[in-house]
Amino acid sequence: MNSNDHVTDLLISCPENPGVISAVTNFLADHHANIVQFDQNTTDPSAGMLFMRISFELKDSRVSYDQVEADLAALASDYGMYWELNPKKTRKRMAIFVSKEGHCLTELLLRWQSGEIPVEIPMVISNHDDLRHEAERYGIPYYHIPVTSETKVQAEEKALNLMEGKVDFIALARYMQILTPEFVAHYPNQIINIHHSFLPAFTGANPYVKAFNRGVKLIGATAHYVTNDLDEGPIIEQDVQRVNHRSTADDLKISGRHVEKQVLATAVSWHVDNKVLVHGNKTVLFV
Amino acid sequence: MNSNDHVTDLLISCPENPGVISAVTNFLADHHANIVQFDQNTTDPSAGMLFMRISFELKDSRVSYDQVEADLAALASDYGMYWELNPKKTRKRMAIFVSKEGHCLTELLLRWQSGEIPVEIPMVISNHDDLRHEAERYGIPYYHIPVTSETKVQAEEKALNLMEGKVDFIALARYMQILTPEFVAHYPNQIINIHHSFLPAFTGANPYVKAFNRGVKLIGATAHYVTNDLDEGPIIEQDVQRVNHRSTADDLKISGRHVEKQVLATAVSWHVDNKVLVHGNKTVLFV
Amino acid sequence: MNSNDHVTDLLISCPENPGVISAVTNFLADHHANIVQFDQNTTDPSAGMLFMRISFELKDSRVSYDQVEADLAALASDYGMYWELNPKKTRKRMAIFVSKEGHCLTELLLRWQSGEIPVEIPMVISNHDDLRHEAERYGIPYYHIPVTSETKVQAEEKALNLMEGKVDFIALARYMQILTPEFVAHYPNQIINIHHSFLPAFTGANPYVKAFNRGVKLIGATAHYVTNDLDEGPIIEQDVQRVNHRSTADDLKISGRHVEKQVLATAVSWHVDNKVLVHGNKTVLFV
Amino acid sequence: MNSNDHVTDLLISCPENPGVISAVTNFLADHHANIVQFDQNTTDPSAGMLFMRISFELKDSRVSYDQVEADLAALASDYGMYWELNPKKTRKRMAIFVSKEGHCLTELLLRWQSGEIPVEIPMVISNHDDLRHEAERYGIPYYHIPVTSETKVQAEEKALNLMEGKVDFIALARYMQILTPEFVAHYPNQIINIHHSFLPAFTGANPYVKAFNRGVKLIGATAHYVTNDLDEGPIIEQDVQRVNHRSTADDLKISGRHVEKQVLATAVSWHVDNKVLVHGNKTVLFV
Repeated sequence: MNSNDHVTDLLISCPENPGVISAVTNFLADHHANIVQFDQNTTDPSAGMLFMRISFELKDSRVSYDQVEADLAALASDYGMYWELNPKKTRKRMAIFVSKEGHCLTELLLRWQSGEIPVEIPMVISNHDDLRHEAERYGIPYYHIPVTSETKVQAEEKALNLMEGKVDFIALARYMQILTPEFVAHYPNQIINIHHSFLPAFTGANPYVKAFNRGVKLIGATAHYVTNDLDEGPIIEQDVQRVNHRSTADDLKISGRHVEKQVLATAVSWHVDNKVLVHGNKTVLFV
Repeated sequence: MNSNDHVTDLLISCPENPGVISAVTNFLADHHANIVQFDQNTTDPSAGMLFMRISFELKDSRVSYDQVEADLAALASDYGMYWELNPKKTRKRMAIFVSKEGHCLTELLLRWQSGEIPVEIPMVISNHDDLRHEAERYGIPYYHIPVTSETKVQAEEKALNLMEGKVDFIALARYMQILTPEFVAHYPNQIINIHHSFLPAFTGANPYVKAFNRGVKLIGATAHYVTNDLDEGPIIEQDVQRVNHRSTADDLKISGRHVEKQVLATAVSWHVDNKVLVHGNKTVLFV
Repeated sequence: MNSNDHVTDLLISCPENPGVISAVTNFLADHHANIVQFDQNTTDPSAGMLFMRISFELKDSRVSYDQVEADLAALASDYGMYWELNPKKTRKRMAIFVSKEGHCLTELLLRWQSGEIPVEIPMVISNHDDLRHEAERYGIPYYHIPVTSETKVQAEEKALNLMEGKVDFIALARYMQILTPEFVAHYPNQIINIHHSFLPAFTGANPYVKAFNRGVKLIGATAHYVTNDLDEGPIIEQDVQRVNHRSTADDLKISGRHVEKQVLATAVSWHVDNKVLVHGNKTVLFV
Repeated sequence: MNSNDHVTDLLISCPENPGVISAVTNFLADHHANIVQFDQNTTDPSAGMLFMRISFELKDSRVSYDQVEADLAALASDYGMYWELNPKKTRKRMAIFVSKEGHCLTELLLRWQSGEIPVEIPMVISNHDDLRHEAERYGIPYYHIPVTSETKVQAEEKALNLMEGKVDFIALARYMQILTPEFVAHYPNQIINIHHSFLPAFTGANPYVKAFNRGVKLIGATAHYVTNDLDEGPIIEQDVQRVNHRSTADDLKISGRHVEKQVLATAVSWHVDNKVLVHGNKTVLFV
């Protein structure tokens, strides 16, 4: 058992209210919870939103986790809180969607295998069969669900059925299909995409060709939650890498892979570690 | 009056104790303080140290700042807390020590003038007269106190006398004299030095020549609190810049200036904003 | 006299041609020129463009600089070369255009004063009077030329007259007026602008507000040559800085200043050092 | 056949000499070689060293590669040149040495598999058997050669025998044994090590523990050629990553892996692409 397995992460967002922080800390003290880490942030002290991430340990056998959860629901109701209670011993379950390029998939699998990202991966889903071997050699089931414009709805239904009850969130690891609003609605703020540019520059297809044509001196990658506006969802993480005039569009693509895989893996890691809260079209990061 | 001028920053470090966080939040609630930002960190939940930075507003006329301060002293005593209470409306007072190179001095003066670093600068002290004009054109008194190995003690006493009651902390903005332990003892964890290398690489004199001779591909700068071990005090901030084989030792020095001035200004800015707690030979940063 | 003052920088771009490199090196050998640095690049060996930057010294009194220049014109004609011959001892002359924000102006003046950018600055021109003192304390003439939409053409004519015969290129150091095509035509690829975003993200006005609203995790700055397409000219240099969800739009603006001033100063420095060749809408950098 | 397979990279270092550049370009013109890329650098024009990297194509059937090589030897003799002629169609052959940690090995294998690093990998050698499966699933022979202080010489001899005639250079991908001078002498400037710190900080064992104890704000990795002075060989590439006070020594180690694998893979890539010249204890990089 990992030393963190006693810890539960509590995420809260609610309207600003002078009493809310002591209400929460008293609630935890009353339940004999030991606070390991407490981060809080307020957009505007007079009329804004308040965000909290609290990691705590329940060390007293008189209080059960279920009791905390039930009592928290009552507290949350009083203060109009959005909340999540995530015990670390319950691993999140991530489906990975891929198409033909495997570098992001492999990076996620490597960090999963080494324990760096403590997640379960019940399945990899792809619209191509190319990366089957890569998933299966890590012992992970691979489902090939072809997608055409005519079959997209059925293909998504098939994926939803496969994931039902088995998947908490999805990493789009260079999955080259646009998801329908119906699909996205099943996993609100639970689908992480990697876009191969520094958004909002170069939205849409072929960002490296566009970057090459524009003559930029840095290329980037952006991990964001998927919404129904293409490439417009809340940004979780971005990074860049220097390129130069000698780089061809293909060179940019190759350099870009390394930024993409790092940025996606970082975003997934924060999501798994309950360090991301979505507020409107932005993320609050407790990192 | 700045919108932040109602805010007070409370810094606390103390041994880990399950009740301490709710004790502090209740203390603030009881004093009608509205918490704007709360950051906390624990080195080890079972037997470690606990660090907190809390920004709060006193908006209720029934409670005075002095009352909070007095009551906090009692609370701190119960829990063995180190604490600082820093009302933002009281600007910290910084003396700047320089020798002959002015780039760090100028950066600090520019950020002070633009309001980016909300600090008072009652004086600049130098062992040379070269930068007098630079300080005086910002209206800041400049004191030239020559230093030789024979006169170092007297020179430091003269500086201490000038600063007495007027200075809260010191920025060594490329001050090329080593301070005596007696001098340092007057400003514990209140003297910020900029070392022109990525410590612990290249301690001591002429780091750019050493970096050139070693053929490094990145040069750096390190801002740290001064202790009695040369270049060994708690690091506040570090950054690096890429160089190449075409760079001469002089080129490294010139490139290095830009890193130095940014790193020192960032460290000073965090210190002024009460975002740094020292623990042993390390810093805890609330940034 | 600086040790580099014997050196001349030759920049060439021409259609790819197997014989051109040895034609150039023989030309230089025949003129008793000692090559100090030679960089060359080809977009496509079979049908592309060829770019060269050659730094050489004329050490033989039998050959004059004027002779080299005259003979080079003949060679260039044979090969269809665009070329520039820039003796380092002849400093380039830069006009700086500013509006109200002084951080980029000051950075350029500081690097000029320290000798880091070996340039002459015959004048600062502004549509406001705010930064007069800043220019004049470095001894540089400051011309206040107000601009309204009605007077833009006259204002630009006034500036052109002031610069005539005195200015080789222009740095727009946060100059908040859009230049007319007529003005730009006087200084083709000789006007360097700093845009306060990572282009092509956030073109146009108020990029920091846009960046704040989009929730980006890095902000950037872009130095580019000015063309008649707003924010679309050839990019010389870009860089970014990490920000977080605690940053307000004003914080982004303040952080952004430090990136802006570094990126503009770097671009100006490369331009002055003859390290930039424009090809179409891109730059070739010999750095 | 790759489009680059017609290209040959010529690396030269020699004492500065006014005639040498045109001698080389004429030599190439006389052999009907088309120069694709030409980079040159001089440490000191009057008495320094001159470094060149020239990529050229032989497109004329009248001249053979062997003829170029033979004639070049004569030219080199006249000018005291060190030179290497590397036709790209002849892949370099790299042995990878590992111990128990596989992240650097995997990164090299992935970039080899995708064609990003055009190299041959005839074998992986390890003092442990742990990573056998990782090498073999890419179809690469894995040799387990245990090493103790008593058997080190025999173990190295065994490795040398295995590599004889099959290996051009070695990547130490977290190989935790110190090589003897006798072994190093077989591959001068042909053994690339990844050290898990920003050298010269934290030489020797356990750099992450040392970095943790020193409280640094950035951790780094350094790829360098192996010499007989531990961690003192010519540096090829370095990079860093930001860490914070919340990071444990184990967190630093995990973060460090990503920097290590990128830095080693970059250094190997440059070595394979003939972009590195060693001069004394430094590298000249044509990147």
